[in-house]
Amino acid sequence: MGEKAERTRELIRQEAYRLFAEKGFKEVTMTDICERTGLSRGGLYRYYSKTGEIFSEILSKEYVISDRIEGLESAEQILTDMLEAITREIMDKETSLSLAIYEYASLGNEELFIRINEAAKQRWISLIQYGMETGEFKPVDPDRISDLILYYYQGLRMWSRVIPFEKRTARYYAATIRELLL
Amino acid sequence: MGEKAERTRELIRQEAYRLFAEKGFKEVTMTDICERTGLSRGGLYRYYSKTGEIFSEILSKEYVISDRIEGLESAEQILTDMLEAITREIMDKETSLSLAIYEYASLGNEELFIRINEAAKQRWISLIQYGMETGEFKPVDPDRISDLILYYYQGLRMWSRVIPFEKRTARYYAATIRELLL
Repeated sequence: MGEKAERTRELIRQEAYRLFAEKGFKEVTMTDICERTGLSRGGLYRYYSKTGEIFSEILSKEYVISDRIEGLESAEQILTDMLEAITREIMDKETSLSLAIYEYASLGNEELFIRINEAAKQRWISLIQYGMETGEFKPVDPDRISDLILYYYQGLRMWSRVIPFEKRTARYYAATIRELLL
Repeated sequence: MGEKAERTRELIRQEAYRLFAEKGFKEVTMTDICERTGLSRGGLYRYYSKTGEIFSEILSKEYVISDRIEGLESAEQILTDMLEAITREIMDKETSLSLAIYEYASLGNEELFIRINEAAKQRWISLIQYGMETGEFKPVDPDRISDLILYYYQGLRMWSRVIPFEKRTARYYAATIRELLL
């Protein structure tokens, strides 16, 4: 795929992301995405054939850390960067995809979510194992701690749309995980 | 209110709970609740004037522990009982109210959720403080730990409807909290 095509796909994902965060999954149509991106129907369909395809790609995008682990960077530094990105996200409730995730799952896309959840979990497990190897992290059960990291985050993402959050709420998240690991 | 009236209210809440868990908040009507309970329209409206009133009462029902603390029961035993009730709930995904909560919140009921969240948090804080006083719990930051307990739980409740859970997932929750406190 050419560079221009990749830029267009990225634009589509960005605008669709905002729509899914605003309205959930079910209410977003390909027409909405045309309007937001300024693309014609033909232009949009050249890249994606339905909203589920775009949503699934958005969810599959990950914060990549394997190259940093292979590059032997400090596990604590990788952790710090990940927690920083996550706490910024937690405070930015407008970008929460919780409702869209819930709706898309209720339409029978369990396989996708199993895969995404597994990938996210594996990423955390690999960081935790790496940190234990370098001696930077305490000896913990990587499987158990990564469950906490993921579901605590999901609870915060959902409730950020239910009640107003103070900055403390996101800080607590990072502090708890640091304390469990360092 | 007479005993019979209280029994009827309880029946209404029970049946409505199932409907909210199944369909979320928005799609449940007073007519649905009449059908499920077998009450006439007049019969139902004698107790509740709208679905929001029933939902709000359901959410406000709490697991009461203040009398156990006042009765000087062991903090560890209270914790064990609470975690047991919660892990049972986590595995029972049919009773998850996450979508209904999300929808009801999006209709502008922030005050209610702030109140419910505060009450739940206070309940945990009081148990944690009590456990530290009796020397059964480690010295921790009650505010921070109760945040973890509540949002980790909410994340699990939501995701129990997105992916299938193994028993381990609920066990991890209880094990993590026990380890943080005991």
